[in-house]
Amino acid sequence: MGKAVEVFHSNGFSDINPNLVLDDDNQNKCCWYEEEIDEDLKWSFALNSILHRGTSEYQNIALLDTKHFGKVLVIDGKMQSAEMDEFVYHECLIHPPLLIHPNPRTVFIMGGGEGSAAREALKHKAIEKVVMCDIDQEVVDFCRRYLTANQEAFCDKKLHLVINDAKAELEGREEKFDLIVGDLADPVEGGPCYQLYTKSFYELVVKPKLNDNGIFVTQAGPAGVLTHKDVFSSIYNTLKHVFKYVLPYTAHVPSFADTWGWVMASDQPLSLDVKQIDSRIEERITGELLYLNGASLLSSTTMNKSVYLSLLNETHVYTEEDARFIHGHGVAYRG
Amino acid sequence: MGKAVEVFHSNGFSDINPNLVLDDDNQNKCCWYEEEIDEDLKWSFALNSILHRGTSEYQNIALLDTKHFGKVLVIDGKMQSAEMDEFVYHECLIHPPLLIHPNPRTVFIMGGGEGSAAREALKHKAIEKVVMCDIDQEVVDFCRRYLTANQEAFCDKKLHLVINDAKAELEGREEKFDLIVGDLADPVEGGPCYQLYTKSFYELVVKPKLNDNGIFVTQAGPAGVLTHKDVFSSIYNTLKHVFKYVLPYTAHVPSFADTWGWVMASDQPLSLDVKQIDSRIEERITGELLYLNGASLLSSTTMNKSVYLSLLNETHVYTEEDARFIHGHGVAYRG
Amino acid sequence: MGKAVEVFHSNGFSDINPNLVLDDDNQNKCCWYEEEIDEDLKWSFALNSILHRGTSEYQNIALLDTKHFGKVLVIDGKMQSAEMDEFVYHECLIHPPLLIHPNPRTVFIMGGGEGSAAREALKHKAIEKVVMCDIDQEVVDFCRRYLTANQEAFCDKKLHLVINDAKAELEGREEKFDLIVGDLADPVEGGPCYQLYTKSFYELVVKPKLNDNGIFVTQAGPAGVLTHKDVFSSIYNTLKHVFKYVLPYTAHVPSFADTWGWVMASDQPLSLDVKQIDSRIEERITGELLYLNGASLLSSTTMNKSVYLSLLNETHVYTEEDARFIHGHGVAYRG
Amino acid sequence: MGKAVEVFHSNGFSDINPNLVLDDDNQNKCCWYEEEIDEDLKWSFALNSILHRGTSEYQNIALLDTKHFGKVLVIDGKMQSAEMDEFVYHECLIHPPLLIHPNPRTVFIMGGGEGSAAREALKHKAIEKVVMCDIDQEVVDFCRRYLTANQEAFCDKKLHLVINDAKAELEGREEKFDLIVGDLADPVEGGPCYQLYTKSFYELVVKPKLNDNGIFVTQAGPAGVLTHKDVFSSIYNTLKHVFKYVLPYTAHVPSFADTWGWVMASDQPLSLDVKQIDSRIEERITGELLYLNGASLLSSTTMNKSVYLSLLNETHVYTEEDARFIHGHGVAYRG
Repeated sequence: MGKAVEVFHSNGFSDINPNLVLDDDNQNKCCWYEEEIDEDLKWSFALNSILHRGTSEYQNIALLDTKHFGKVLVIDGKMQSAEMDEFVYHECLIHPPLLIHPNPRTVFIMGGGEGSAAREALKHKAIEKVVMCDIDQEVVDFCRRYLTANQEAFCDKKLHLVINDAKAELEGREEKFDLIVGDLADPVEGGPCYQLYTKSFYELVVKPKLNDNGIFVTQAGPAGVLTHKDVFSSIYNTLKHVFKYVLPYTAHVPSFADTWGWVMASDQPLSLDVKQIDSRIEERITGELLYLNGASLLSSTTMNKSVYLSLLNETHVYTEEDARFIHGHGVAYRG
Repeated sequence: MGKAVEVFHSNGFSDINPNLVLDDDNQNKCCWYEEEIDEDLKWSFALNSILHRGTSEYQNIALLDTKHFGKVLVIDGKMQSAEMDEFVYHECLIHPPLLIHPNPRTVFIMGGGEGSAAREALKHKAIEKVVMCDIDQEVVDFCRRYLTANQEAFCDKKLHLVINDAKAELEGREEKFDLIVGDLADPVEGGPCYQLYTKSFYELVVKPKLNDNGIFVTQAGPAGVLTHKDVFSSIYNTLKHVFKYVLPYTAHVPSFADTWGWVMASDQPLSLDVKQIDSRIEERITGELLYLNGASLLSSTTMNKSVYLSLLNETHVYTEEDARFIHGHGVAYRG
Repeated sequence: MGKAVEVFHSNGFSDINPNLVLDDDNQNKCCWYEEEIDEDLKWSFALNSILHRGTSEYQNIALLDTKHFGKVLVIDGKMQSAEMDEFVYHECLIHPPLLIHPNPRTVFIMGGGEGSAAREALKHKAIEKVVMCDIDQEVVDFCRRYLTANQEAFCDKKLHLVINDAKAELEGREEKFDLIVGDLADPVEGGPCYQLYTKSFYELVVKPKLNDNGIFVTQAGPAGVLTHKDVFSSIYNTLKHVFKYVLPYTAHVPSFADTWGWVMASDQPLSLDVKQIDSRIEERITGELLYLNGASLLSSTTMNKSVYLSLLNETHVYTEEDARFIHGHGVAYRG
Repeated sequence: MGKAVEVFHSNGFSDINPNLVLDDDNQNKCCWYEEEIDEDLKWSFALNSILHRGTSEYQNIALLDTKHFGKVLVIDGKMQSAEMDEFVYHECLIHPPLLIHPNPRTVFIMGGGEGSAAREALKHKAIEKVVMCDIDQEVVDFCRRYLTANQEAFCDKKLHLVINDAKAELEGREEKFDLIVGDLADPVEGGPCYQLYTKSFYELVVKPKLNDNGIFVTQAGPAGVLTHKDVFSSIYNTLKHVFKYVLPYTAHVPSFADTWGWVMASDQPLSLDVKQIDSRIEERITGELLYLNGASLLSSTTMNKSVYLSLLNETHVYTEEDARFIHGHGVAYRG
């Protein structure tokens, strides 16, 4: 077969034939990205192209151009972020705590190597310093190179990028922060991140590094009517054991195939006034938000009855010895 | 090959071998139900079994046992309803208008052959009459036989089942109703239903059949951040041209792979007080709701900023000459 | 969700609605059986229904009704046998050695629990005894019940069914056979069968149990232009080290997604005359063959140049210490 | 969403990060090419990358890098040719007639825009002229640019490339040929090619353009045990009504998911002697063949019993009024 192997090649340098134009209609069903959402559920997106692929010490990385969600970042076979709707996830992760906080100046992001969380934080004019601590140099390099919208953020002098384990980094630092963000992978079984969701981590590592008025926020996994008991209710309940005020909120993220959850926690009240939020968005933020305003932020903190009761009745607390896991969907690499 | 054809058969009558038990773990990835959500997006569910298949004059029908969503009703290759989360869709379709209405007695359901909308309406003790008008006798028969949870509703003397075109039926009736429900297929191109979403239909057929205080509610298609302009914003805007008060609301329905939308409309104010809703649920409804309470109903009427702006700025009005269509997902058969 | 879980059920006892008939055309693309042929290749068949599922001590079993290949037997997620083309595999496995042998009387089948190999052997009028030795009682029970075409064979008094490990059974028996058949799973890594492909097994277990003129035949895995080096050439070469005369042959089996290979071996010449084969088919066999006649049998022993050269140059010999494996396609359970 | 759309980009010009290397193992299951082989059967190949996509007046074209079959050429969603096994199809199409012919000098290829058929013909040292007539300029340009192995052939001065309808071209030419090759799409319903498979076309257009001793050969669609009645037996029978000597032959082409068929036809005897073929390969051909030698060519002309009987009993003749069609697999564009 030796000869046969040389039959085809790809000449990336040839000039473009004007008669050969991309046809979006007819080739829809030719190439697909397929993802296992759960063991018994998978979905597939028609591809325009495979833009980049790489691998790091920890993970595989790909940037795909899908017809449905635009360009998507895939890490270890899981979609992390999609051009068309990543604003929902990242606005919800960053702005609610920064808008509720009276005067935030400093942010520490655990994970977040994609750069989008930092980008959102840096939209707040008063923010003086954003420390982003991701364990994976190559993922950070990949995203810095290929995710245009985050390139300005990656170049911002207020951004302090650290490649380290988030726990070790937080422990080793002497400074405290107004906001600490958990932009980490879900507590997947066998994954590297579940220790960053435990009561002792929140108590002994996170809380001591928060300033007065400081807020902790974490992504908290799927929060749909069928999935909120996987990890969302436990993360909420664990934080209730560590902080005086805990506020869960959710939003449907289409490319995650589910409603997603976040939890804010603080020892200061997390009060939410629609008009105040709207005026703070006006005053504090450069540019415009796409998903959040005062009313939708308030609305996102109201759970439906099914989720509400589960949060109310949850008794599980994440410890090193007793963790809950989900199938492995979601933000699989941050940390 | 004649002989070969007789090689296998299925002996449905043999006694069951106790050593042959269902193994849910290992055969997850063997048989799948696959659905095209959009031209460039499809998803697949692992199957336990194919329970029933049938066909009617209008449509194909199947009842499948999926691992992820339990038993699902599939019409013409589109999932209509899933055991695990159909309560979200049907509670949202029926209870908000019945809870806002001061004293509803009569309901007319356009479509709804599955029986779930009628089931929810009949939970209201004060309801005296539910007319359910579906065009497809076989779908109704199929659901009446196989959907256990709706069998009680199908037998309820307050239910008046009519097999007819919903428009013709409404026009031909002399009585008026407190609530008219559009549990119809989305306005799919080439589909039979888009005429039941036009301004003239609402004006000339629906509105004249509403009592004073009467409310019209319709499912209104996908309402996610990426999909709400498909038909949701147009249906909302069309109803604004016909009724004084129009209230859109949304909820994420996992088995629809999207946030879904509904719109209520009336010439009486659609006022929503959390405590009043909670006490009316308590007083009026037999049994318990799973998804809705006062707070989550209120929350569901608050759109995120992206959807809010689209509704605000929508100018399209459905007419017979100018319709908008979507790819064909969703409740494809009702009507 | 407690209530929701009871929403649907399947009423197996209801009388059949004459309006609900199977529609083969429109629901083609709804339910699929999906199989991984290789790590980077999978295929899917539209399903009519899932007829039976079971599990044994060793394996999962399913009988599916596919639109393309008719009823198919699936073991551990691999298609074993398809109604539409199993005659190709089983005619090729059994008849060539029985037709070449001057006067075969007794057959020992290692594996073959499906019953089709025994069925083919019993078509030879002169056969007095067929011992079928499969390790998996439940697979045998499953096939005996559900595979109609083999029910006559399962009831034939000449068939001696033994549930045992094929090696132990052969070793323990005192009698010798005219034909020993390897209807075993491919030598899959971690699978139970690769020891039944080794030189020492052929030398020490099989050969001593062959009568004078006795022939050994084994299925020998995929033999296509791209796959024949996986195991086919090694099995051929291993047998060449044990028997004086070795004859490989192949046929394309559509439901295996490949050309398949078998190897005959004997210490007596395996001479093949087209006319003699045709007349022996006429004389010896009850009923008709569908795939084989003298000419096609001869033709099947001629490899294309690519495979021919690989067989010629193969140096690998299966031993317990040095086995070759394939991805796991094919007849995965026999033995 | 305006802003969101700019989130990602692909920077094709950035220098390569040495830490980002392709990982073939872990990303196998991320991106797939999916093809519908039949309405009820599809298969999928893991992709390394999407190399090129284009569209012509007639068809969509893509060059994909698959893990299983190497680089594959896809036209209108159908795999045309795969790096790993295209040699089987093209050797079988071209060499049997050229080897049987006593002294071929000139070849006319209907279709064949990919260039592989011409490449094989040009391996015969005595060939003086190869006319390749394809209707699709862009497909020819695409293949000339991207299919390395055919670039030498495309530059060969003996190759006369014509962009035209094959029928019009043949009719318009005055010269006759030693070999006319049908490297055309299958007679797919609604496709452009079925007229090039009719009795009148063979009789009135092809045959008059053959020299004495001239041979016509055509690809003849799938020829497996389950598929040979689709078109193969009809094409064979049609040619029997036009030529004195007709010789069908087949080979399993893995990337076509089937055994494939070709038919040679001539008014001179098509005699096949193994030794003569082997010596003609030696004498006439530059380089080596991978699939064919004398023995395998002879073997490929022997059908199995099932196909043999179908060919014997076929009565259908392709006419303009009475054509048979297949689902659309195979070489869909040539012509």
